[in-house]
Amino acid sequence: MIIDIHGHYTTEPQALHQFRDKQLAGLADPMRRPTSTDLGITDDMLRQSVEPQLKLQRERGSDLTIFSPRAAGMAHHVGTEAVSMQWTTLSNDLIHRICTLLPDNFAAVGQLPQHPGSPPKNCIPELERLVNELGFIGVNLNPDPSGGYWTDPPLTDRQWYPLYEKLCELDVPAMIHVTSSCNPNFHHTGAHYINGDTTAFMQLIQGDLFKDFPTLKFVIPHGGGAVPFHWGRYRGLAQEMKRPLLADHLLKNVFFDTCVYHYPGIELMAKVIPVDNILFASEMLGAVKGIDPETGHYYDDTKRYIDQLETLDAPSRYKIFEGNARRVYPRLDAQLTKRGHPAKPVN
Amino acid sequence: MIIDIHGHYTTEPQALHQFRDKQLAGLADPMRRPTSTDLGITDDMLRQSVEPQLKLQRERGSDLTIFSPRAAGMAHHVGTEAVSMQWTTLSNDLIHRICTLLPDNFAAVGQLPQHPGSPPKNCIPELERLVNELGFIGVNLNPDPSGGYWTDPPLTDRQWYPLYEKLCELDVPAMIHVTSSCNPNFHHTGAHYINGDTTAFMQLIQGDLFKDFPTLKFVIPHGGGAVPFHWGRYRGLAQEMKRPLLADHLLKNVFFDTCVYHYPGIELMAKVIPVDNILFASEMLGAVKGIDPETGHYYDDTKRYIDQLETLDAPSRYKIFEGNARRVYPRLDAQLTKRGHPAKPVN
Repeated sequence: MIIDIHGHYTTEPQALHQFRDKQLAGLADPMRRPTSTDLGITDDMLRQSVEPQLKLQRERGSDLTIFSPRAAGMAHHVGTEAVSMQWTTLSNDLIHRICTLLPDNFAAVGQLPQHPGSPPKNCIPELERLVNELGFIGVNLNPDPSGGYWTDPPLTDRQWYPLYEKLCELDVPAMIHVTSSCNPNFHHTGAHYINGDTTAFMQLIQGDLFKDFPTLKFVIPHGGGAVPFHWGRYRGLAQEMKRPLLADHLLKNVFFDTCVYHYPGIELMAKVIPVDNILFASEMLGAVKGIDPETGHYYDDTKRYIDQLETLDAPSRYKIFEGNARRVYPRLDAQLTKRGHPAKPVN
Repeated sequence: MIIDIHGHYTTEPQALHQFRDKQLAGLADPMRRPTSTDLGITDDMLRQSVEPQLKLQRERGSDLTIFSPRAAGMAHHVGTEAVSMQWTTLSNDLIHRICTLLPDNFAAVGQLPQHPGSPPKNCIPELERLVNELGFIGVNLNPDPSGGYWTDPPLTDRQWYPLYEKLCELDVPAMIHVTSSCNPNFHHTGAHYINGDTTAFMQLIQGDLFKDFPTLKFVIPHGGGAVPFHWGRYRGLAQEMKRPLLADHLLKNVFFDTCVYHYPGIELMAKVIPVDNILFASEMLGAVKGIDPETGHYYDDTKRYIDQLETLDAPSRYKIFEGNARRVYPRLDAQLTKRGHPAKPVN
């Protein structure tokens, strides 16, 4: 089984966008507020909306996508905390419906109703609803709810602790994923996403978060931002700060996806990041949609790059494509086992 | 000749730090302002202060270091624009004295008296002084004078244009280098520096700056941040934005240094970045000072990584170690030629 751990619902029906427009228009003119949260989206419309993803799964040879709302759509910084809450609930509900309709193709990851300046513990009720009531297997956690001004505290700050406690209790990982940028310095997919990944990893080096939360698991997307390319820098900085080796300090809790859109990047990643920490992902229908003229294939067809890695043996391949995902997302593993797909035993 | 294009004066005499303390204390209590800008630093003290750099040049086999004030010391966000101006002048004057005392070992690059919210054109008088009066061959340009809040406009904004016009007129390149971070989210060398590099490159993809300034040259340090690791992403984003190929859009004007502190990173860089755009650098006595237990050598002894690149032929090696630096820093080339070291002819 090939599990793509990073997909966003970027093909939402227009009705969702129309709701969002009304919701935000309502900030300026309460007369324009949406009168209902019933979007009128039928199951058939949902099924049809994810046909592009299903087609790519078939064509590229993946089976299951871990699926969450559009990352740039989370926009926690827009409006008020109440707006974020309503928008989050609605966005997560659509993910839930799709994953219920197509359980062999999609597993649900939710967004959290974060808002700049608001305590992360306010997200706990939605987190509990997602996991306990709707069967979600993880969440996206935005390390910068301000959308590019970084005005909230780092991930190691104690304000996050109640949320981390709940993540541990529920045994779900968080993907550390920023949303859109309202800072003109940062293009969202070209700078803000990658900076967010790099920043989160460095915060974790500086802190000692996993001493307090030994079972907390974070996935850093987009190949970990700049981290593998500067692996020597990060090993050296940790050393200067008298931190343990990164393998001991972070790598039992921090994982990287393979959303790196050329072979040399994936090749580097496989050289420096232990195979137990690499999870296959493409963010398909995401950041970069075109065909690479140098290869004739889609940039985000990342499975091709991994297939090219001659140094990987079969057990390593299994880990990257399935085993690690089942370990990092234990609730996915349980769902798959229940549906008759047990994990392979690996070392 | 081996030219290291990225060194900072991180071994300054205590007198400089004492001045800075008094200068900043004076913001709170004018009684504590320094009474003189004469630091009492003799030529012998300067010579002695750079002994560590000279020792490493000898040991590691480089000849000349392009030398600028401590990057984290620029701290443009601290105090007022007048404070930045005074501090900049003083810091640059020390660099000038060192490069005058040891012209075979150091070539001078300056800091600019930037300040958040102040127009970059205010830096022109100091830029002219540095180049026309003191023989500086380049400057460091901070893309985020706020020190981690990114509240000023992107590098492609027209507010920067008067400064770019002057850089072109004087024929000096700018290294795009942030300074310290006053944002607790960003460790300076572990996140802010790398994010600054990545952000600058993406801004340049979005804009069309080099159409307006075909002779402007930027050096992006630390291997270009995350850029080479995500080269497919950047090629793909440029393509989606209907920008020309990066080779045409940016690579006549944008160069990367080799401050990447492990071999796999340099190996990746050499695979994806054209050899004409790679300039040898170590940022020695800089960000990462320790010995890599995996190799037994200093992380920042980057010459070793380049020496290991078996795919590089002799002309390419010459470009990385000397030729490209002489092309990107034409005033350095002129100085070296005048001192009896002409450049080798290369294609």
